[in-house]
Amino acid sequence: MALDGDMKIFSDATLDETAEALLRAGVAGHELLVPRKLASSVLSKSEADPALTEAEIAFGQPDVGGIAGAPNLRWVHLSSAGYTRYDTDEFCAQAAGRGLIVTNSSAVYAQACAEHVFAFLLGQARCLPQALRTHSANGTPEWRAVRHAGVSPQGQCAVILGYGAIAAHLVKLLAPFEMRVIAMRRRPRGDEGLEVVTPDQLAGALGAADHVINILPDNAESRHFINAARLAQMKCGAVFYNIGRGTTVDQEALGAALHSGQLGAAWLDVTDPEPLPDGHPLLSAPNCHLTPHTAGGHRGEDETLVRHFLENLRRYTAGESLRDRIM
Amino acid sequence: MALDGDMKIFSDATLDETAEALLRAGVAGHELLVPRKLASSVLSKSEADPALTEAEIAFGQPDVGGIAGAPNLRWVHLSSAGYTRYDTDEFCAQAAGRGLIVTNSSAVYAQACAEHVFAFLLGQARCLPQALRTHSANGTPEWRAVRHAGVSPQGQCAVILGYGAIAAHLVKLLAPFEMRVIAMRRRPRGDEGLEVVTPDQLAGALGAADHVINILPDNAESRHFINAARLAQMKCGAVFYNIGRGTTVDQEALGAALHSGQLGAAWLDVTDPEPLPDGHPLLSAPNCHLTPHTAGGHRGEDETLVRHFLENLRRYTAGESLRDRIM
Repeated sequence: MALDGDMKIFSDATLDETAEALLRAGVAGHELLVPRKLASSVLSKSEADPALTEAEIAFGQPDVGGIAGAPNLRWVHLSSAGYTRYDTDEFCAQAAGRGLIVTNSSAVYAQACAEHVFAFLLGQARCLPQALRTHSANGTPEWRAVRHAGVSPQGQCAVILGYGAIAAHLVKLLAPFEMRVIAMRRRPRGDEGLEVVTPDQLAGALGAADHVINILPDNAESRHFINAARLAQMKCGAVFYNIGRGTTVDQEALGAALHSGQLGAAWLDVTDPEPLPDGHPLLSAPNCHLTPHTAGGHRGEDETLVRHFLENLRRYTAGESLRDRIM
Repeated sequence: MALDGDMKIFSDATLDETAEALLRAGVAGHELLVPRKLASSVLSKSEADPALTEAEIAFGQPDVGGIAGAPNLRWVHLSSAGYTRYDTDEFCAQAAGRGLIVTNSSAVYAQACAEHVFAFLLGQARCLPQALRTHSANGTPEWRAVRHAGVSPQGQCAVILGYGAIAAHLVKLLAPFEMRVIAMRRRPRGDEGLEVVTPDQLAGALGAADHVINILPDNAESRHFINAARLAQMKCGAVFYNIGRGTTVDQEALGAALHSGQLGAAWLDVTDPEPLPDGHPLLSAPNCHLTPHTAGGHRGEDETLVRHFLENLRRYTAGESLRDRIM
């Protein structure tokens, strides 16, 4: 680790002008290597870049193959919370073998993600989508339907699938509602401070939940985790939320559960694919509310991203442990 | 006060079947006087009813003139939180003169109202109305506009106009966001547990607020309380919420503030009149989000209403002080 002198830092992060300037100022004294071609989106597969092979640090969405061919690379800081492309046995083995540190940007998006799903939950409690569409007069049947449909989350039960930074923040926001909150986690640590179940203990929790909140990332274990069987285990009329990844849900089964009324509603920020093609059944399924993968977004997001990287750069230089380390 | 034996209880409250049955069971042992004609809405002016003249207790929306002509009446329990019709110098003097107790149903609607405006605030923070309409792909300009528009309420400032049961509950829900909350109250008591200003100290608070939440009732003092001058005192881009009464706002000035960008958005559950007529300027004003006076509504609302009355009936019979006493 080059504690003294300048380091070569590769960045293919797509940033707005302010954030780009913040990055350049923050890495002053080091050499910033700009890739030949910027990735158009963090979710598209970026191309290998020769500049990467020289770098000690890479920030953004560096190509998996490019990382393998970059002998000087010691630390990769991903500009996303999701890291599906890197979450393979092969990549993990490579990282472990060569002592490559991998961090992600979970903390950047956790607050906005938690607030997004919380807004979904409150929107559901107050029937916002219907209420915002209804201009009927007080006393009409249409008005009564909206007026008397609201249900307070106070004292209800929520199950959160995937317990990490987003869930921890969400639990904080939910506190005044005195809900029963159960988190599902593959490997409970015992320090979560709430009821935790493992996937094989989930059925009972699903049966108790008024709200099922999915924050699962996309990986081999999570694909179609929410399937017909798990939807059937839910309490009739439960509400399903997804701010994890679209691939974790069997969308055909989800549509069927909405049509049958087994699910009271679904609030989805993520789908498979994104966006759903015109005419996709979920676009017209009853009580299915969609936002276009904007849960983690916020004003100044690129600057938050850079600040998070720069804080980790400071820690790296100081030999401290890095935030959001995933490998 | 007839502590022993049966009492004559008049009710013109419009209730669903379950709540009606709950009321009949709850007043067993007393005589329930049903009016000749039920009011079609709590907000329409009800007609005087001869049955009222016999009653000691009236539950619902008894006619103001009818109350004056009902010599045995000791206690009126209103089925609404608002009580504009009764909030006159003449009626207050009459009630005081004859020792008439007047209670309202604030507690019935407080939780739902607080959750409604909280849902508005979170909907604003996460750009829900826009996000729910946007199906654009990741990376498009339309998507970026929504993705980067979210602003967390964390640490922001909110001014609440009117501090009562709704505001107190709202303050509880806002706690995890660590906001600066300032309440405006005509007569501060000192036990509010937060920053309180009187109307004449409001300008400074409005200039600091990211969110201005109006819970004012309709009375002579509150009419057009939010006018061009107060809108101009607000921080540019502030968001205005109204779950009080539509008459408290100069709607022309509100529309102008939305068009100029002085207001970032408005979330209105109440307007004047309700609903707004087709083509009303607020229906197409930028970032103006309307729900049709459904803030206090909730599933089982009529039962909550009856339970609240029956609890007060128990207190009345036991000689205890009544909840939500307004006169």
